[in-house]
Amino acid sequence: MIQSKGYAAQDAETNLAAWNFERREVGPHDVLIEITHCGVCHSDLHQIKNDWFPGIFPMVPGHEIVGKITAVGAHVKKFKEGDLAGVGCLVDSCRTCDNCQDGLEQYCLNHSTQTYNSMGKDGLPTYGGYSNNIVVHEDFALHISNKLSLAAVAPLLCAGITTYSPLRHWKVGKGHKLAVLGLGGLGHMGVKFGVAFGAEVTVLSTSPSKEAAAKALGAHKFVVTSNPDEVAAVAGSFDFILDTVSAPHDINLYLSLLKTNGTHICVGAPSEPYEIPAFSLLMGRKSVSGSGIGGLPETQEMLDFCAENNIVSDIELIDIKDIHNAYERMLKGDVRYRFVIDMATL
Amino acid sequence: MIQSKGYAAQDAETNLAAWNFERREVGPHDVLIEITHCGVCHSDLHQIKNDWFPGIFPMVPGHEIVGKITAVGAHVKKFKEGDLAGVGCLVDSCRTCDNCQDGLEQYCLNHSTQTYNSMGKDGLPTYGGYSNNIVVHEDFALHISNKLSLAAVAPLLCAGITTYSPLRHWKVGKGHKLAVLGLGGLGHMGVKFGVAFGAEVTVLSTSPSKEAAAKALGAHKFVVTSNPDEVAAVAGSFDFILDTVSAPHDINLYLSLLKTNGTHICVGAPSEPYEIPAFSLLMGRKSVSGSGIGGLPETQEMLDFCAENNIVSDIELIDIKDIHNAYERMLKGDVRYRFVIDMATL
Repeated sequence: MIQSKGYAAQDAETNLAAWNFERREVGPHDVLIEITHCGVCHSDLHQIKNDWFPGIFPMVPGHEIVGKITAVGAHVKKFKEGDLAGVGCLVDSCRTCDNCQDGLEQYCLNHSTQTYNSMGKDGLPTYGGYSNNIVVHEDFALHISNKLSLAAVAPLLCAGITTYSPLRHWKVGKGHKLAVLGLGGLGHMGVKFGVAFGAEVTVLSTSPSKEAAAKALGAHKFVVTSNPDEVAAVAGSFDFILDTVSAPHDINLYLSLLKTNGTHICVGAPSEPYEIPAFSLLMGRKSVSGSGIGGLPETQEMLDFCAENNIVSDIELIDIKDIHNAYERMLKGDVRYRFVIDMATL
Repeated sequence: MIQSKGYAAQDAETNLAAWNFERREVGPHDVLIEITHCGVCHSDLHQIKNDWFPGIFPMVPGHEIVGKITAVGAHVKKFKEGDLAGVGCLVDSCRTCDNCQDGLEQYCLNHSTQTYNSMGKDGLPTYGGYSNNIVVHEDFALHISNKLSLAAVAPLLCAGITTYSPLRHWKVGKGHKLAVLGLGGLGHMGVKFGVAFGAEVTVLSTSPSKEAAAKALGAHKFVVTSNPDEVAAVAGSFDFILDTVSAPHDINLYLSLLKTNGTHICVGAPSEPYEIPAFSLLMGRKSVSGSGIGGLPETQEMLDFCAENNIVSDIELIDIKDIHNAYERMLKGDVRYRFVIDMATL
């Protein structure tokens, strides 16, 4: 077994703390990645707190993983020692169902294996990226360009693909008006991708103070949603709204801002259900849709697109000992826009 | 003014009763229709009871209107005296907005005028089809074939177009698995259209007793949703669910029956909002969409399609004095599948 060290939650009530554990040996198709950076996702906090479902403890969170390959199995073809590599939210899937065959491993019909808080096919729990290393099948590792800052690439593995995938799926681009709701880790990537794809991007925010930051990210317009005049001025005007908000929120106001045939795309996962009156959908043939991360081929496509177009996440690098302070600030929206753990501080 | 008689609700607490009223003179672009039949829609009851919004009283309900033209204005081109004609949910719209220009008058951006419980551009309330006649601009009257039973055509003007339009918009047809939820006035038309368009149609019902009726309408399969085994057997199997239910209901069970990228199409209008957990949408990139009636060109297309394919509504013809009994039976689902008022009984 491979010795690993990381930060783990021993249960849903206890803070993360240093923890030593073991990972499986590097199998014939596996790579061993020495992790240099791991992004901090809101879902890390949801999962260590059992917000969604009872977790598997001890839990080592983290699914925005980048680093360098330090060992490869005998049959590995995609990677060699010394390559940069990344791991996102998935480390396995059935590979045989229709969705896996279509490169939609995130929607594996036989349940994919998540990077942490999940059971692998070997019956052992998976441990995530708040750690010094990870062993993963080469099919679930991604190539990372050396053109970009590794730390700033890490959040692309979740926040990046989560926003890239729906914008590609719904073919958002030139001629479209896209609104982005929530200017956090996901939202700021949504703005960058929307702009890169040629859409006119408006940030919707309750906070007038975010306007300069939104414009700095490339947003063309900014609407303060607590200002009725500003809201009235954009009623019925958007083709798509990318809703990145993970806290419970009322989406009816936003449905009224969609054009006829418009789509409200949810990529956040509030713990409370959305409440949607039928008339908000009927009047204008509107849709509320969801999208979850992305499959492996599209995640690689996104990483390559980012390397070609010089797109990374705006990050704040932290020491791992400061993770709880980072969580507290994340809950208050006090981060521009993603915390990334410098794993050298482990 | 033209003298009319009908059945009206004087307020939201009082039963419908005979009422004499006036309609506008036949203008240069208007036609006068002597109404022979009017369908009874669940929304008639919603509106006379103020379920959706405070109504305009006295209210003459009815928007599934068929009859014969007995007078035409000087500039009318589409119709001549003696023609059969129908009127659905709309009697006017702005005609200039993008949606009106696209034949989507039901989504008129400047508010369309409903056939009843609505204010016309002349500032006068509109009165619906529970009456002996109606005056309407020729653009909002539809040609009715003489090949089909007039009484059985009436419900096509609302129940027909409400189900035809979304199935056409989402291009439901050969190779698709369509589930229809709710086997009432709308649902039975959804089954007929789904079958006519080439989809494999499954009726989802809480009531095993409806299986024979569903099959008689052409449904290929029938699933009792209170039977966990039957439900499990169709999990993740439908491309589309056409949800015609107007009573409050939990749609999460149904979302789990959709394939990846599946769409749950709402055409009913429950008075309570749908409650939709984000994960039900995220896991499989699913959509909940709405669709409201249809525009004039598509309504004519639907009527022509029905004439060519011998499709009508299954109806129970009633005397107008029995309207309250019909409402009570409608609320209990005790009708196969639409009550239609024989206006000769007025």
